This record gives sequence, C-alpha cells and structure tokens, in this order.
Amino acid sequence: MILSNVSAERLSRLQKQMAHAGVDVVAIAPTANMRYLLGFAPLADERPCALLVSRDDIRMMVPELNADQVEARTGVTGIRWTDAAGPRQALAEALGELGITPGGVLAADDAMRADALLLLQEIVSPKKTMAAGELMAALRMRKSEAELEVMARAAAMADAALMAGADVCRPGVTEREVAEQIATSFRSQGADQVDFTIVGSGPNGAFPHHEFSDRRLEAGDMVIIDLGATLNGYHSDVTRVVHLGEPSAEERAIYELVLEANRRGRQAAVAGAYARDVDRAARKVIEEAGYGPQFIHRTGHGMGLEVHEPPWITSESNTVLEPGMVFSVEPGIYLPGRFGVRIEDIVVVTEGESRCLTGLDRAMIIK
Amino acid sequence: MILSNVSAERLSRLQKQMAHAGVDVVAIAPTANMRYLLGFAPLADERPCALLVSRDDIRMMVPELNADQVEARTGVTGIRWTDAAGPRQALAEALGELGITPGGVLAADDAMRADALLLLQEIVSPKKTMAAGELMAALRMRKSEAELEVMARAAAMADAALMAGADVCRPGVTEREVAEQIATSFRSQGADQVDFTIVGSGPNGAFPHHEFSDRRLEAGDMVIIDLGATLNGYHSDVTRVVHLGEPSAEERAIYELVLEANRRGRQAAVAGAYARDVDRAARKVIEEAGYGPQFIHRTGHGMGLEVHEPPWITSESNTVLEPGMVFSVEPGIYLPGRFGVRIEDIVVVTEGESRCLTGLDRAMIIK
Repeated sequence: MILSNVSAERLSRLQKQMAHAGVDVVAIAPTANMRYLLGFAPLADERPCALLVSRDDIRMMVPELNADQVEARTGVTGIRWTDAAGPRQALAEALGELGITPGGVLAADDAMRADALLLLQEIVSPKKTMAAGELMAALRMRKSEAELEVMARAAAMADAALMAGADVCRPGVTEREVAEQIATSFRSQGADQVDFTIVGSGPNGAFPHHEFSDRRLEAGDMVIIDLGATLNGYHSDVTRVVHLGEPSAEERAIYELVLEANRRGRQAAVAGAYARDVDRAARKVIEEAGYGPQFIHRTGHGMGLEVHEPPWITSESNTVLEPGMVFSVEPGIYLPGRFGVRIEDIVVVTEGESRCLTGLDRAMIIK
Repeated sequence: MILSNVSAERLSRLQKQMAHAGVDVVAIAPTANMRYLLGFAPLADERPCALLVSRDDIRMMVPELNADQVEARTGVTGIRWTDAAGPRQALAEALGELGITPGGVLAADDAMRADALLLLQEIVSPKKTMAAGELMAALRMRKSEAELEVMARAAAMADAALMAGADVCRPGVTEREVAEQIATSFRSQGADQVDFTIVGSGPNGAFPHHEFSDRRLEAGDMVIIDLGATLNGYHSDVTRVVHLGEPSAEERAIYELVLEANRRGRQAAVAGAYARDVDRAARKVIEEAGYGPQFIHRTGHGMGLEVHEPPWITSESNTVLEPGMVFSVEPGIYLPGRFGVRIEDIVVVTEGESRCLTGLDRAMIIK
C-alpha cells in the first residue's frame, strides 16, 4: 500500500480525531470523504465499498470490478469481493486484519447508503454507531491554500455561467433553454460536471429547490438563477436574480432587503464569530421588515468537495469561524404563487474581513 | 392529502408486502423509491426527508424549504421542520400520528443516507432494522406497459448517443471529447440528464468503471463506450466497442467470445428461468475459453427508475424471471494494462423470447 503524502497526513489527522472521540473504527463510503482521504472514490453504486480506518491502520473493502482502478488511483490494495460471493467475507476479513472486535464504537460516513450501514452494523456488532460527520468536518472545514485556489477558479466559472444564462433570459424562452445555455458555458470552460441548475421564473422562484421546467419566461418575471459545477472535485454555488422588464416597487423593496441581508451576513463572517452570528445578521434584516416567515431556510452552508458541507450557517450553529472556512451567504424571501428572491455569494473567512469568491455585481439584472 | 391514483395503488401494494413481511414501518428517502411511490422526490441533500409508511397510513417528514414543492408535486402535506429546529420533533410527530411504537420492525430505503438512518433508529427504537430493498423490488421489478414505452424511447436515445460518440472516435481525439459529443447528442434529443459516460480507450478499457480522461485515442485502440441517460426518470444503458484500425486476431477472438456470451445470455432470458441461468449461459462461454477470471463482474442488472436495480443477474441470483422484467446483459473480458471488451444490451422478459430495447448492431465498430 503506497499512499500519497497528502492521504497519509489526512488519515493520520483522522486517527487523532478518532482517539479523541473514542471511536474504534470509521467506515468511509465512496463519497466526498473518500475523495478527501484517498484522492479518489470509485463509482458509488449499490455494491458496498468501504475504507475502514482503525486507530492505527486502514483496510479497504472493494468490489472486484473496481479494485484495479482503486489501486491505480490511490495506491491502496483492496480486499476484493465478487458479485458472485458478495461482500460479507471481505468485510469480515478487513475488520479482522484491523483487529476490530464486537462491542466498539463505529462511525459511519454520513452519506453512506443505508444498506451498506446495515451490513456494517451486522458484521461489526458495535455497541454504538454514530455519524462520522463531525470527525470529518474537523478535518475538512478549513481549506488549504491549494483548495482555495481551485475553489476560486470554480467560482469564476460559475460567475461566467450565470451571466451566460442571464444573457438568454427573455420572454418566450423556457427555463430549460436557460439551463442548457448554462450547461454549455460550464462545459466550454472545462468544468468536470454541472451539479445543479435552478432557473425559477415567476411563481417557480418561490420554491427554493425548484430545478427548471418547460415554463416560458414572461415579461414582468423575476427569475432566480442558482447554479454550481465542479472543478477538480470542488464545488461552486452562486445565485443572482434577473428581472424581465421594469420591477414593481414591491419587487424592488424585497430585492433591496435581501441584498442588505446578504451584505450584513458577509460582514459578520469574521474569524472568532459563531456561524449563528452570520445567520442572525442576515435574518435580522429580513425579520425586522416583517418577512421572517418568508425566509424559509438557513442563511448558508459550507462548501468544498461537497456542495453542502459544514459549517452550517443556521440560527443554532455554535461552530466558531476560523480562517480558511468557506461557505455561502444566501438569504432569500419567497412569496408562494408569486416569486422569490435569493442573492448568494461564497465567502472565505480570513484573519480580517471575509473574502468573496463570487465576483459578480449584486444589482438586480434588469432586461 | 390528495394522492394520484397511481401513487395510491402503489402504496397499497407496498402495505400488503409489509404485512406479509412483518414490517411495521417503511422509511423512504428522496430516491427512486420515492419517485416510484409519489411521482416526485425533492432534492436529496443532507436534510433528512422521509416518507413514512405504516400498514394503513402514510406521513411525510420534510424540510421546510421543500415542503411547498412536495405538496404541489405529490399532493402530500408534509410535517415540516426548519433548519433552525432540526428534524427530530417532526419525525417524532410523524411516527406518533402513524401510531408507531418502539420495538417494531423498521425497513429503510436502501439508498437512504446513513445519518438519516441513524436518526430514524434513534427515534423509532426498532427491535430490528432491515433494508427495504426486497419489499420495493417486489413492486418495481415488473414494468408496466407505460414504463416499458418510456424505457424504449430512452434506449433509442442511448443508441443514437452511442453512435454519435463512435462517429468522432479517431486518433488524437480525447476520451473527454468523445464524452462531450455524447452529452451533446443526449441534450439535443431531450434527455433529462446524462447519468454516466464511460469512454475507456486502450488500457483504460480494462477498468469496467473508468469514466473518461484526457487520454488521446491512438491508432490500434479498442474503445469501450458505455453510456446512459434518463428520460422521464427512466434510465438507459448500452455498451459497444469501437476499434481504431484493423483489430488483431486476439482482439477479434475476444470480441467474438463476448458477443457469443451476450447472445447466449439474451437467449436464456425467458420467463420462468432463474436470473442465475442468464449469468450462467453468458459466463459459460467465457469460462470455457479460459477467460473466466477476466470476466470480473455480474452479467447484468435490472434497470428502471434506477440504472442499477433488481433483478441482479449474478451466479447466485434465485430471482425467477417474469414478463415485464428489464435488465442488462453485458458480459465483458478485461485484460489489465491492455484493453477491455464489453457488449451490453437491455432486454425485456416476455411470455416468449426476450425482447431487446437496444436496437444497435452488435458488430465491432471498426474505423
């Protein structure tokens, strides 16, 4: 087994966290956590695949058909199982080699599939199973300079893709056509893949997780465009609002509120503050104007190898902000049946004021 | 709560399965299972969202920001939780309304996230947790005529996309460029999204789950192209092999073996046979020629709202084939460091001979 220096260092940090938390074995599925620890994860299908980490060693249980690829990409020689034999024996063997005995504490990758977790629980027989999320967050929340450099490039691609989408917005064009323009922009810029595209026009904008439909844009529509793609596995995420024609006084007033909430949130994103302070700063603006019930989600989420990851920017989050943390500030107001407004930037916590990876102007895009 | 007739009928079939299997509550995440049961699933992010099914009722626990969208798309009024409050109380309320008490049997969606399952286990306190896969497979394996019609259209799109990819294969072109051509074809045909694209040229073809890289195709390369996209949520999947220039005698011989294995597998796909008979028929051809150890995966997998779903076409599968079941027949031979060959068709079991949704010729595509 020949791990890269980066992988060896990250695994060693995880093992320190495990000792501190009293965890005997961590099981990592082919998720962002595996990509963080090993630099690669094979196709995550229904075949159980797990990197098993004890306090002082690792083993990998891997489906036969992915094993050569995993070895070539990570240096890890897996304990293989075939489609004919199934994964039980390979899992038992991996645990045996690690010296894991029944009655310990198992921490499972948050995004592991339930069927894989149930198999693990059956074979490990732990006294307790917990989610590995906090252990992994402690490793992943503060980005390195190299990670920040990739994320800045990913954010610049997202900015350009958003403007490419905004460019084609006009009455008669469908949300799907706008989304296609965005996909074309991402591809031409060399993104790994488009993760998600929301084009929420008119009443669709009031569903924060609307994707896109065949609805045709109409004169007078507010259009929320929210998108992200990956570059070298790192995510981007940005939201701006396009208006077709002159906005009404109400639309302008709501937009200004959300813009002010976005500004206050970014200002509050300083090292030493709590994540909840960022939520409070943004939410206060909207609540004081009477739109609190229409701001139906948290103010933001961390981002990196996942598009949503810690730190969570919620009213209850006690995470202390540290330099290198990256998260979205994305307040919104949603009026069911009518329209929605959300303005989202990605910020990096530094020793001083937060730095913005999103480079777009924040004015409403009026067309 | 106003469910569609299709949803009501499918939920009722699930509840019959539950009674038969002694399951007290099924928890369905925003996966293909939810799309099957309700016709829609909201964004599956880290926020727990579950359709909870008891023997005679349902409740849905849903993040606030997706609740209006879920209600508009499914008719189900969810029990909401906010990012500030977290999901515990909503989950407890949903279970209470369903009359679920501790000590029962919980069946969890196979693809539910581990963190959601751990939360469920904590709040439900079941005496046993099992995967819901078999319950759901019993509902989903036999496709309706309407499902088969969509899948036939999805398969035709995949055929066209494969040929579009094959068209641009020539020395100097990168695997990524071939994949882009495939994506363009799928988009122009109106696919929902491209699910996966494998362009495995030369030695990359020996990794069954290689995706695509910046490797430039070379004269003399075997190139495996394996791809799929969704149409109305239903998947396609097809594999063909392109050869740049004249194949060697060894390459031809291996191709002919895989082709014969594919033919035998399809022939064995008849109602009343076991799924393992299909695997055996295909594998026998390859084993008898001495390449058994190089056929490192099962012969096929079911397909529908997931690209991999039951029935599993493995050497151990006792599933009895029934009319309406849809699966891939995709034997392969992989020579590490050199090349791979896989030929994949999608078959539908009927009362007579199996029907092929894939319409492409099976000869090696020589360019």
